[in-house]
Amino acid sequence: MSTTTFPFPKKAHLQQAADRIGPHVHRTPVLQSRLISRLAKADIYFKCENFQRGGSFKMRGAINAILQLDEAKRAKGVVTHSSGNFAQGLSLAAKSVGIPAYIVMPFNAPSVKQAAACGYGAEITLCPPTLADREATAQRIEKEKSATFIHPSNDDAVIVGQGTAAMELLEKQPNLNVVLAPVGGGGLSAGTALAVRFWGRNATTWGAEPERVDDAYRSLQSGQIEHNERTDTVADGLRTHLGDRNFPILQRDLAGITTVSETQIIAAMRLIWERMKILVEPSSAVPLAAVLKERERFGGLKIGIILSGGNVDVNQLPF
Amino acid sequence: MSTTTFPFPKKAHLQQAADRIGPHVHRTPVLQSRLISRLAKADIYFKCENFQRGGSFKMRGAINAILQLDEAKRAKGVVTHSSGNFAQGLSLAAKSVGIPAYIVMPFNAPSVKQAAACGYGAEITLCPPTLADREATAQRIEKEKSATFIHPSNDDAVIVGQGTAAMELLEKQPNLNVVLAPVGGGGLSAGTALAVRFWGRNATTWGAEPERVDDAYRSLQSGQIEHNERTDTVADGLRTHLGDRNFPILQRDLAGITTVSETQIIAAMRLIWERMKILVEPSSAVPLAAVLKERERFGGLKIGIILSGGNVDVNQLPF
Repeated sequence: MSTTTFPFPKKAHLQQAADRIGPHVHRTPVLQSRLISRLAKADIYFKCENFQRGGSFKMRGAINAILQLDEAKRAKGVVTHSSGNFAQGLSLAAKSVGIPAYIVMPFNAPSVKQAAACGYGAEITLCPPTLADREATAQRIEKEKSATFIHPSNDDAVIVGQGTAAMELLEKQPNLNVVLAPVGGGGLSAGTALAVRFWGRNATTWGAEPERVDDAYRSLQSGQIEHNERTDTVADGLRTHLGDRNFPILQRDLAGITTVSETQIIAAMRLIWERMKILVEPSSAVPLAAVLKERERFGGLKIGIILSGGNVDVNQLPF
Repeated sequence: MSTTTFPFPKKAHLQQAADRIGPHVHRTPVLQSRLISRLAKADIYFKCENFQRGGSFKMRGAINAILQLDEAKRAKGVVTHSSGNFAQGLSLAAKSVGIPAYIVMPFNAPSVKQAAACGYGAEITLCPPTLADREATAQRIEKEKSATFIHPSNDDAVIVGQGTAAMELLEKQPNLNVVLAPVGGGGLSAGTALAVRFWGRNATTWGAEPERVDDAYRSLQSGQIEHNERTDTVADGLRTHLGDRNFPILQRDLAGITTVSETQIIAAMRLIWERMKILVEPSSAVPLAAVLKERERFGGLKIGIILSGGNVDVNQLPF
């Protein structure tokens, strides 16, 4: 792949996505915590996608992708494979416009996530927990139902949809120096980087990733998409790898990625819970963990952090 | 006591309290959850005092009481006994105006609460966990330091300060039919009832209390202040009894009290956590539990609920 010929999404694509999805998503609040800013010796603004419909930012990209399908395609429904938030996001997005959603989930996905997708009216098909099985099952359903496959993160419509969270953040706080997003499959981080490129006055985008699943960190170093050999991180939303649509965006627009330990993630998550009194899932705490770890880099700056979601099993907390 | 001669706080007292404490407290948000409203078959507005400074509404009454002391008294500091949120509220209020706070806490108070009060710079004195010991220790410090004792709930300045939360709620939602508050020591519930009396267009105030500590429910029935024989409720903020300042207000202005079981409290708390993605302490969930229990009474109404606080030990959740 040559990045010079890659058709990067443009500012107009993000603006159109924001207009398109406006009626279907919440404009989530931006919160601050004096104590956390003091601890980090920085001025931190949290964009609270944990309050988004479906409990995470995923609804943004999902509904943007659906709304770009023509009437005939839309009526046949959409299909994806996901063990987590995109299952909920796509189910809710489909419900929002009254079309079927077919979700392939590994049978070991948390039962709360299966229940949530079911609750939104999606048709759930369980499969063995390997990528090959997930893809094969999704392809079978795609054919059977003539439904449109929507990838959770490696899809331009999804990427620019996710970028609308950072757009809204920058509308409220145009003078941020850095915006941080967690890096999982690359949809949110690439969308964020695009929004910062187009609307940030003097801002860079920084990724944050668990040390245990540092595939994106290694991908930026090697120049090719790397994979994870282990997936045992508490940040269950960040176990996946990048794709050929979002990786070039990250190569061009990301200033860098900071990796953090499991202990640092859990401590940052606890800080957000106890001090801000809001539920965030472990993946959401990864950027704050990065800011608290690299004080030389982030100290003194005006920082935006995308709190990606709040879907957590309150019976299985990592504290 | 004759209620006809009792000098009830007037509308001007609440208005003055709101003006006085404005610079020191957060104007907390009012949130809704579609799903919870649908479950309750009502239109529910949550006033989020879990986001208040110090993690609960207690800061309102504490700072209002402190600001009404003259300079000389203020300089000597304030003293109270509390095992919970008022310790944090008074400590933070004292810190806000730069005066000493002396807090008497039972030695078995949760260490997170002791740590929080300490963190706000209060001088903490531990005592045995009986009311007699708490009062005796507070009186000793009051004399030693010439500090002013401020009662957590049975003090007019505290009562009207707590009422400012419902004032703000009614400013945003003037057409509420019912406002519910949890009933513990009576400060929040009496203040809420006053605010509803003065600013509600067509609203009544309803109390909510755990069945296991239904002292206020029994007090309203018997016409005298009753006490609890057991205190083993998960709603740790509601174990105390009413006082002679707030009881007459509740007698005059409360439409009634609904009592709820421990199971109902925990289920309501879980619903708020999972669906609204916010941390509330068990006491805060008691009014929602009441609404979900008495659907004939509350169904179809426009309801305000004071979410009293979010100070909870995330290592000791009741789920």
